[in-house]
Amino acid sequence: MAEKMIYSFGEGKADGDGKMKDLLGGKGANLAEMVKIGVPVPPGFTITTKVCNYFSKNSGKLPADFDGEYQKAIAKLENSAGKKFGDTENPLLVSVRSGAKFSMPGMMDTILNLGLNDKTVAAISKKTGNRRFALDAHRRFIQMFSDVVLEVEKELFEEILATAKKKIKIKLDTELREEDLEKLIIKYKELVKTRSGKKFPEDPTKQLALARDAVFKSWNNPRAFTYRRLNKISDDLGTAVNIQAMVFGNMGDDSATGVGFTRNPSTGRREFYGEYLTNAQGEDVVAGIRTPKPIIELKKEMPAVFLELKSITDNLEKHYRDIQDFEFTIEQGELYMLQTRTGKRTAHAAVKIAVDMVKEKMISVEEAIMRVEPESLNQLLHPVINLSDTYEVSAKGLPASPGAAVGKVVFDSDDAVEMAGNGEKVILVRTETCPDDIHGMDSAEGILTARGGMTSHAAVVARGMGKCCVAGCEEIKVDERGGKLTIGNKIIKKNDWLTLNGSTGEVIIGKLPTVEPTLSGDFGKLMIWVNKIRRLGVRANADIPRDAKVAREFGAEGIGLCRTEHMFFDSDRLPEMQKMILADNAPDRVVALNKLLPFQKNDFIGLFKEMKGYSVTIRLLDPPLHEFLPKTKSEAQELSKKIGIDAKVIWQKTEELHEINPMLGHRGCRLGITYPEITEMQTRAIISAACELQKKNKIKVVPEIMVPLVGSVAELKNQRELIDRIAAEVMKTANEKIKYFVGTMIEVPRAAVTADEIAEVADFFSFGTNDLTQMTFGFSRDDAGKFIKIYLDQKIFASDPFQTLDVDGVGKLVHMGIEKGRSVKKDLKVGICGEHGGDPDSVKFCHRAGMNYVSCSPYRVPIACLAAAQAVIEEKSDSEYSMK
Amino acid sequence: MAEKMIYSFGEGKADGDGKMKDLLGGKGANLAEMVKIGVPVPPGFTITTKVCNYFSKNSGKLPADFDGEYQKAIAKLENSAGKKFGDTENPLLVSVRSGAKFSMPGMMDTILNLGLNDKTVAAISKKTGNRRFALDAHRRFIQMFSDVVLEVEKELFEEILATAKKKIKIKLDTELREEDLEKLIIKYKELVKTRSGKKFPEDPTKQLALARDAVFKSWNNPRAFTYRRLNKISDDLGTAVNIQAMVFGNMGDDSATGVGFTRNPSTGRREFYGEYLTNAQGEDVVAGIRTPKPIIELKKEMPAVFLELKSITDNLEKHYRDIQDFEFTIEQGELYMLQTRTGKRTAHAAVKIAVDMVKEKMISVEEAIMRVEPESLNQLLHPVINLSDTYEVSAKGLPASPGAAVGKVVFDSDDAVEMAGNGEKVILVRTETCPDDIHGMDSAEGILTARGGMTSHAAVVARGMGKCCVAGCEEIKVDERGGKLTIGNKIIKKNDWLTLNGSTGEVIIGKLPTVEPTLSGDFGKLMIWVNKIRRLGVRANADIPRDAKVAREFGAEGIGLCRTEHMFFDSDRLPEMQKMILADNAPDRVVALNKLLPFQKNDFIGLFKEMKGYSVTIRLLDPPLHEFLPKTKSEAQELSKKIGIDAKVIWQKTEELHEINPMLGHRGCRLGITYPEITEMQTRAIISAACELQKKNKIKVVPEIMVPLVGSVAELKNQRELIDRIAAEVMKTANEKIKYFVGTMIEVPRAAVTADEIAEVADFFSFGTNDLTQMTFGFSRDDAGKFIKIYLDQKIFASDPFQTLDVDGVGKLVHMGIEKGRSVKKDLKVGICGEHGGDPDSVKFCHRAGMNYVSCSPYRVPIACLAAAQAVIEEKSDSEYSMK
Repeated sequence: MAEKMIYSFGEGKADGDGKMKDLLGGKGANLAEMVKIGVPVPPGFTITTKVCNYFSKNSGKLPADFDGEYQKAIAKLENSAGKKFGDTENPLLVSVRSGAKFSMPGMMDTILNLGLNDKTVAAISKKTGNRRFALDAHRRFIQMFSDVVLEVEKELFEEILATAKKKIKIKLDTELREEDLEKLIIKYKELVKTRSGKKFPEDPTKQLALARDAVFKSWNNPRAFTYRRLNKISDDLGTAVNIQAMVFGNMGDDSATGVGFTRNPSTGRREFYGEYLTNAQGEDVVAGIRTPKPIIELKKEMPAVFLELKSITDNLEKHYRDIQDFEFTIEQGELYMLQTRTGKRTAHAAVKIAVDMVKEKMISVEEAIMRVEPESLNQLLHPVINLSDTYEVSAKGLPASPGAAVGKVVFDSDDAVEMAGNGEKVILVRTETCPDDIHGMDSAEGILTARGGMTSHAAVVARGMGKCCVAGCEEIKVDERGGKLTIGNKIIKKNDWLTLNGSTGEVIIGKLPTVEPTLSGDFGKLMIWVNKIRRLGVRANADIPRDAKVAREFGAEGIGLCRTEHMFFDSDRLPEMQKMILADNAPDRVVALNKLLPFQKNDFIGLFKEMKGYSVTIRLLDPPLHEFLPKTKSEAQELSKKIGIDAKVIWQKTEELHEINPMLGHRGCRLGITYPEITEMQTRAIISAACELQKKNKIKVVPEIMVPLVGSVAELKNQRELIDRIAAEVMKTANEKIKYFVGTMIEVPRAAVTADEIAEVADFFSFGTNDLTQMTFGFSRDDAGKFIKIYLDQKIFASDPFQTLDVDGVGKLVHMGIEKGRSVKKDLKVGICGEHGGDPDSVKFCHRAGMNYVSCSPYRVPIACLAAAQAVIEEKSDSEYSMK
Repeated sequence: MAEKMIYSFGEGKADGDGKMKDLLGGKGANLAEMVKIGVPVPPGFTITTKVCNYFSKNSGKLPADFDGEYQKAIAKLENSAGKKFGDTENPLLVSVRSGAKFSMPGMMDTILNLGLNDKTVAAISKKTGNRRFALDAHRRFIQMFSDVVLEVEKELFEEILATAKKKIKIKLDTELREEDLEKLIIKYKELVKTRSGKKFPEDPTKQLALARDAVFKSWNNPRAFTYRRLNKISDDLGTAVNIQAMVFGNMGDDSATGVGFTRNPSTGRREFYGEYLTNAQGEDVVAGIRTPKPIIELKKEMPAVFLELKSITDNLEKHYRDIQDFEFTIEQGELYMLQTRTGKRTAHAAVKIAVDMVKEKMISVEEAIMRVEPESLNQLLHPVINLSDTYEVSAKGLPASPGAAVGKVVFDSDDAVEMAGNGEKVILVRTETCPDDIHGMDSAEGILTARGGMTSHAAVVARGMGKCCVAGCEEIKVDERGGKLTIGNKIIKKNDWLTLNGSTGEVIIGKLPTVEPTLSGDFGKLMIWVNKIRRLGVRANADIPRDAKVAREFGAEGIGLCRTEHMFFDSDRLPEMQKMILADNAPDRVVALNKLLPFQKNDFIGLFKEMKGYSVTIRLLDPPLHEFLPKTKSEAQELSKKIGIDAKVIWQKTEELHEINPMLGHRGCRLGITYPEITEMQTRAIISAACELQKKNKIKVVPEIMVPLVGSVAELKNQRELIDRIAAEVMKTANEKIKYFVGTMIEVPRAAVTADEIAEVADFFSFGTNDLTQMTFGFSRDDAGKFIKIYLDQKIFASDPFQTLDVDGVGKLVHMGIEKGRSVKKDLKVGICGEHGGDPDSVKFCHRAGMNYVSCSPYRVPIACLAAAQAVIEEKSDSEYSMK
């Protein structure tokens, strides 16, 4: 290879730098960068990823001219370290680590203390005055090296160790004496000989060559391969190998080792945060045998080193412009930094750090926006269980809708409504929920179901309400009739307390304290920046005034989806709805619809009031009518008593309306076309509500009437003619003029394909990507859960298309729909409603696709806003700020 | 208007000609053409369609310069006819007829004898010496004119007539005496005055102007408007008005009137065919009071006229190069042709005439091919009821699958199999059929169901089998348990004879004789031409060897779809299939599948043998597994006894597999991915069958293994890897090499949208437009019937997308799929399977879209072939040969 294959670092000089991640991997580039900016780092060198690729392509051969450069690098390292491989007085020990461009589990990780053999052990014993330490290091080195390089399984060494400990009757490894260790080393080497057929390599340079090649090989091991496939990382990147001189924190009381953060990763506060152990190695901190001390004590113990560490890490933070998570070792009073990387943090800390760093002028507003993972805001927008509390998890279901909920168990929606009416907090527990449960769910603090997936009725509705929900908790048994819930061998009855953690799916018996979210402070500051930068509008899906209010508080700029059918499940309305459905003819339907009209009108007045001046998109009746009818004969009998219609007639209608594939059945605009009186009543309610508000309250109203499930322009034409006629009639009677719009959902593939024709008749498009995903894939959301899970496990799908919009398939139809629509109406307003509108990746797609707005559940509005702002920034500079 | 507005004809000269259909309408252009080629036609003139359009756009006004041209045309007509409007000696009477470019019901049709009033009646009386005739003509003229021009309803005249007849105690109109007619005329005129407020117009030129304008107005009457919308005829065409001198066939024994065809329209034989009445008017022939004489008698009665007529009509046929349907009148020895047009004919005649005319060198082969309506071949390919027999229809259902069937009634599939085994012909009668009935349907001559539409299970399967089926016959009641069928008040029991006409939906009690189809002769000749000209391949859908045999006889070039699931419903296989489904784990499934393997292998051996060398496309298991399990608890108990598995376990599995939207559920390749052992067994059966045949029988086998319901390339990759692995294994064991292909159905919208990715892994595509239509529209075929019917009634849809491929929507996805697929694999083989593959319009679309082949039910193969050939010809010359 003509190119440089090895990059050395040490003594304040480095061949590479932090930008060379492609060539040196993340770790190698970072080590070079640290050296370059004057941070004390043990010397070493990095073999490039290109060498790895050569190695992979040439069945384990290295480039012809590699060895020369390699020998020089070793010599340079020995020189910098002032130690020599295999030296009997001052032997060089090194660590060998893999390091690809992206942090990547699955590859060979770390070999420490490479260079040890019987001779160098003696030298180290002498030098440290601690023979036991040297022997123990040797034993561990053999085990680690044999496992990862020679493929002699770790377990076999553990067996030998266990046998030995049993024999000498000790429990802890630390109780092993020098003579025990000596014997163990002999046995270990015998094992290696037996299993691998070769002697354990004593020559440090041979050890090093073997370890180096093992790192290269590990790039193609099955685990690494699978990880890359899953994370869409190219197989061509290759890994670098980092070889670095060892330093020891266990060389006496002037030695130490520790880890730390430049700020508090939990709260985000600007404080030096970490812990250390004197006279110890890194492993000891992790092992937890000795309790580490808070880092602030280092100030007293080794004031100069502390100041140096503080100054170095401050500089690192400034240099990397983000909170740093670092590791250090102090060897006989000398400080070495072993690692620095961006620190992981809680959502709360992420927001605080981002906002603080802008104040400190360390980063720009745009960078601050990129620093917060949109999805993580979920943690900030709901009440949560106090994380400092410990609690016992009794069962675990799907984290269907985030937040915490504490309440008394009820098994019936009516009970939920009643108890909540008395000021009690309740948790609704059901095997599954159905549309009849809406009001029970609405009254409950949280919902727990035994069946159903992330997109089950309970999950979808709860997310829409911003209500905690744990769904599909298969460990529990719900006996609604018996009024009890069984978790393992515990029985929970009505009125017993239960706590749900909807963010994790945890179910906890009893009553835990929760913490309420705050939307002001740093969060508020961040959202101001976000809203200034984003171009995509963000609306909320809201069916009732209270949801609309929450939506406004979270910053929604209108309602993107009001599902009018939810308005019909109220106990005083459902019977009229049912009478309408049971009517034999249009006049009887009109009678029932006329009773529903005032309810609908009031609903819209409530919504319009909350959204003063913002657009409100109202979807006409969508679900198949059988959803409103009883499911069983006994329910039909109950209903019969209530509404005075023969149970036989009710049941006959139920059977008549039964559908084999209701998703693809008589619903959406197909209802409005076959029962025009329904569209008529809804239009009348919308326009008369708008007229009244405009006249009496002087509130501007912008109703957008949305016709669902249009697949052909003729359908929309039919409904539009009807809507326009009724609207004109209502406005004439009220002597008011309302600027209303009539548009359609694009949720049937045919609508996307013929969007140019449809745009001729539509004032706006709203992509219903839930249904569009169902029909584009041919997946029923109710049924596909089972095999989608298998698809995800088998990596046939990278993500669930109902959670993140499928850009390659559904996305193409979305693009086509927008393009065709705007080819006819240049300024056609285009949005998205449904679950994807609150998913950050999908929101970014919507931005790129040129939509005007997304609409999501009220509690996801800030998430969508943040994602929309990030989309703008990513667009500006695809690579610079990229989060990957 | 600067253009000529009126085209005169007569005395051997015509301003227009036969090509001017846009301007003169079909009738006007034909009259001009006849005059031009020397045919004696009563003189007249045609007012152009442009005048009509002017009239429509200017609220009933005529162009300023119209009247001059009009007066001239009338003068010319009077001159040609040698008669004058309103003349008291030789008055001109005319007919007024509408005539658009396309024959179009709904418009004003014909007014005869215009020009009659009290004065001209006297003149006609004198001239004909038949006062009664003149009076009767007058009475009828008033009634006809008033109805269509003055909008005085016909029924009111009929009432007056009925009252009069009652009073004078007669029954027939012909019994009315002159004095009765005189009184009636007075009463008629009084009625007109009362209802319209105006006197009946006596002035012939006023009558003519009113009639002319009424024709123009009728262009925009609702019936005409609807007809145009339904038939996609532009509203801008307008209609012409034809005004022509009357001639009379009732002026004595040297006068006559008749109709005829240049060939026999029923058999197609080349024979002069028709009938006439001496001393009669056209109406008398239609009224059926006098029995017309066969035209050959005219030869004796008026030999010269007969020869003239024969010669004229022969010339007309030669001129128009098609069988002519003509009308003529002989007025006092003078022959006048009143009309000639292309004759309607039976399918049988159409084929014979087309083939004969090629032999006679009258038309080209290509024209002959265009002369036969593909759909009409259906009549020729199935046994039919002898049309010359008369029979009583007891009930009528949907004509679900054509042909006639005669047999003894059975209500149970097992009975059907048993009786058919004993050589008896049976008709399977069920409320509905289900997949369990496949073998009963297979054994029956025909199927009758009380429920279900054109795409119900019975209909689809019967069409696939080419078996007669009357579906959804709601007039009948089927009592399967009671073993009886009720039609009206008649009860039919098991073993009673029943005849079905699947082409009309008729159900006939008893045993009617049927006629078998012949595929040789003229039909065979036509098909040779068709097959030479078409480019599109035509394959058949066939699941069993017998179907494959029929397919080959009909000319199929391979099997485009073999649905392997149908193979599992046989009584000796179903239990193994059920055991496989009920198995808890893969090893148990494998045990059951291994028992199915020899069955599947034998099925394929049978198919491959029939198709020697032709491709056989085999679709892997497609339907959801619950289709194979019992539907009710009692069925589960029965099954339990049969297969020895606990009924509870069976029912639990049934519930577990239950799906809310099975169409979008766990089926297609989703089965093969989650249960790889199924794909494995099927591959093993296919490849080992092919190996065996190739080795033992030296038969070339071309298996195309088709993976259903692929939506993402990863799915196909998964299945292809499995198939290739098993195939390699089987071939290695057999020491044979099979050239097999692995492809996929494109039936999920996402597959069409990502066809470029999928083509990387697929050897071929087959568009499954049944499912593609379902998902593109979001229509469940099982449920959408109800509202699609309403959509068709309301003209929201022009045709049922499940019958004729929706070119604008689904068609776009098909185009996209082909384009994207071939962008990656230039020569990608593309076909279509499913119902559309046998629909002529859809076949033509497939040709235009560049597919390689269509696949349809065996009995539709000739239809598809003919449509494919027509597509080639239409492509060559879009207008010249167009059938519209």
